[in-house]
Amino acid sequence: MPELRKDPIHGRWVIISTERGRRPSDFVLEDRRSIGGFCPLCEGNEDRTPPEVLSFRDNGTPPNSPGWTLRVVPNKFPALRIEGELSREGEGIYDKMNGIGAHEVVIETPHHHETLATLPLKAVENVLWAYRERIIDLRRDQRFRYILVFKNYGVSAGASLEHSHSQIIALPIVPRRVSEEMEGAKNYFQYKDRCVFCDIVRQELQQRSRLIKENKAFLSIAPFASRFPFETWILPKTHYPSFEHMETFQYGQAAQILSDTLQRISQVLDDPPFNYIIHTSSFPEVDKDYYHWHFEIMPKLTKMAGFEWGTGFYINPTPPEEAAEYMREAK
Amino acid sequence: MPELRKDPIHGRWVIISTERGRRPSDFVLEDRRSIGGFCPLCEGNEDRTPPEVLSFRDNGTPPNSPGWTLRVVPNKFPALRIEGELSREGEGIYDKMNGIGAHEVVIETPHHHETLATLPLKAVENVLWAYRERIIDLRRDQRFRYILVFKNYGVSAGASLEHSHSQIIALPIVPRRVSEEMEGAKNYFQYKDRCVFCDIVRQELQQRSRLIKENKAFLSIAPFASRFPFETWILPKTHYPSFEHMETFQYGQAAQILSDTLQRISQVLDDPPFNYIIHTSSFPEVDKDYYHWHFEIMPKLTKMAGFEWGTGFYINPTPPEEAAEYMREAK
Repeated sequence: MPELRKDPIHGRWVIISTERGRRPSDFVLEDRRSIGGFCPLCEGNEDRTPPEVLSFRDNGTPPNSPGWTLRVVPNKFPALRIEGELSREGEGIYDKMNGIGAHEVVIETPHHHETLATLPLKAVENVLWAYRERIIDLRRDQRFRYILVFKNYGVSAGASLEHSHSQIIALPIVPRRVSEEMEGAKNYFQYKDRCVFCDIVRQELQQRSRLIKENKAFLSIAPFASRFPFETWILPKTHYPSFEHMETFQYGQAAQILSDTLQRISQVLDDPPFNYIIHTSSFPEVDKDYYHWHFEIMPKLTKMAGFEWGTGFYINPTPPEEAAEYMREAK
Repeated sequence: MPELRKDPIHGRWVIISTERGRRPSDFVLEDRRSIGGFCPLCEGNEDRTPPEVLSFRDNGTPPNSPGWTLRVVPNKFPALRIEGELSREGEGIYDKMNGIGAHEVVIETPHHHETLATLPLKAVENVLWAYRERIIDLRRDQRFRYILVFKNYGVSAGASLEHSHSQIIALPIVPRRVSEEMEGAKNYFQYKDRCVFCDIVRQELQQRSRLIKENKAFLSIAPFASRFPFETWILPKTHYPSFEHMETFQYGQAAQILSDTLQRISQVLDDPPFNYIIHTSSFPEVDKDYYHWHFEIMPKLTKMAGFEWGTGFYINPTPPEEAAEYMREAK
């Protein structure tokens, strides 16, 4: 059973994942690891994943068989385990709890060599619908306090499978980065009576130097205080606290700008490794005035080093205004 | 001039380093970069670095010439610039300031192939004395609010030179990770009337499952909530808020345990890349009861991915108790 442990100084939680227990020699070999070979996510290999919890498939095809365009399955090597009651415990001055949670894999396409940048728009939109459906379902579990959607693309961004997929993790606590972000947005709202994200949308649409692209409902920008070169955020123009509670037509618009952004990143940076995350409102805060869901897309081009670990600062060698210019010129 | 920009939601600062301006093609090539070739840090190449601000050298040898065992020089490609007055400015809803600061390089040995794990104890102790002297000197500059000592070892830990060196950065603001750590320690003190680090020292010496090594004045441990496999902290047994304000004999003890730790890491993990940082009290907090300086050493074995970026959680596949056992058995 994995264990959640809390740092007594920072209050930062860490998942000690015994499931994935690693000896020193495992790390030494890791960088030589290839992620090719047999693919459990390809069509026809449905029996090599845990049974699906959601799929979009041709009429009449049974679950866990070919005929699908998208599947969601539990992660075979989950960071957290779905079974059991949450139990909190002390160990001297330290605090821990058992690693209860959900960890699912969204298989975005049956075809091994497609990516979100090459898939047709309809398939990208289906990925967003799958995120939405799984978030809504997982929220029904009273043990969970937050659900994170994220994607690791490429070995150096942490992907362990090549086949296009994203992941969903449900957590028994609101993670620090989310609660800090909500707290920051709340403080801004209390001070200004405006949503900080709405203010960002307004200023970026007006200033345009960091604007990459806009459609009817969304915009993509290189954020003013980008941590990483070519960091890109996607924000809805309308104030929506939660990804999963938008009007239906918004998901098509979101898919369009996500697909556009990933194509530009792939072109400008030669198909780089990247991570993306969706930050949506935590449960008790749903429908609040001050929070505004968004995508954060982070190409993996630089390395976290001592300075970043020691300070929480980031050194970004590419001004976001320059990154936005390269991104606008792509295609 | 580099620019410090503040994220309007998190309050996180980012250094936009125009000095190191990078186009997309620079990143594409980066992973193929070799860090061999001509070394500006080797003895005899003193004219290839900015003039030294400190050196330990043979009697009678002039500055910036051979005959030294350690040199400290300004970084030739600094993340922050030393010249000028601090100026704060808004840009619509955003905040920024000019990138004032100091960025120095501690050249730990004249010999290209030595490392902190292979250098004699006296040389390691001299590195600590150099840190101390530079911190004390930089603290005299009224523009600075924090000074961070850190080391990047190995390309994938962010080192851009092979020759053994560490870095010192003086910052015009107390970085978030430090202020959070001090805040956390303060809260603990208010609640318990004890320093949280002193409590950690006591519990680890008693429990011993995460203890790696101790000498008269220091201990090395795998912290209870280790973020990374084989993360190791070094703490003084006595309550010292600041690295730079200890009794003289402590530095020899610190050098001994630092050298021991780096040798163990090198042996257990086959000379891995790593980062270390020194967290010492921020200026206005010096001599406080609740803060306790320490080393954090982080071997670079796993990758930050979407989950970590999205949550601030870490997934650590090696329980610290197992890491400590491997580390104790080394040598």
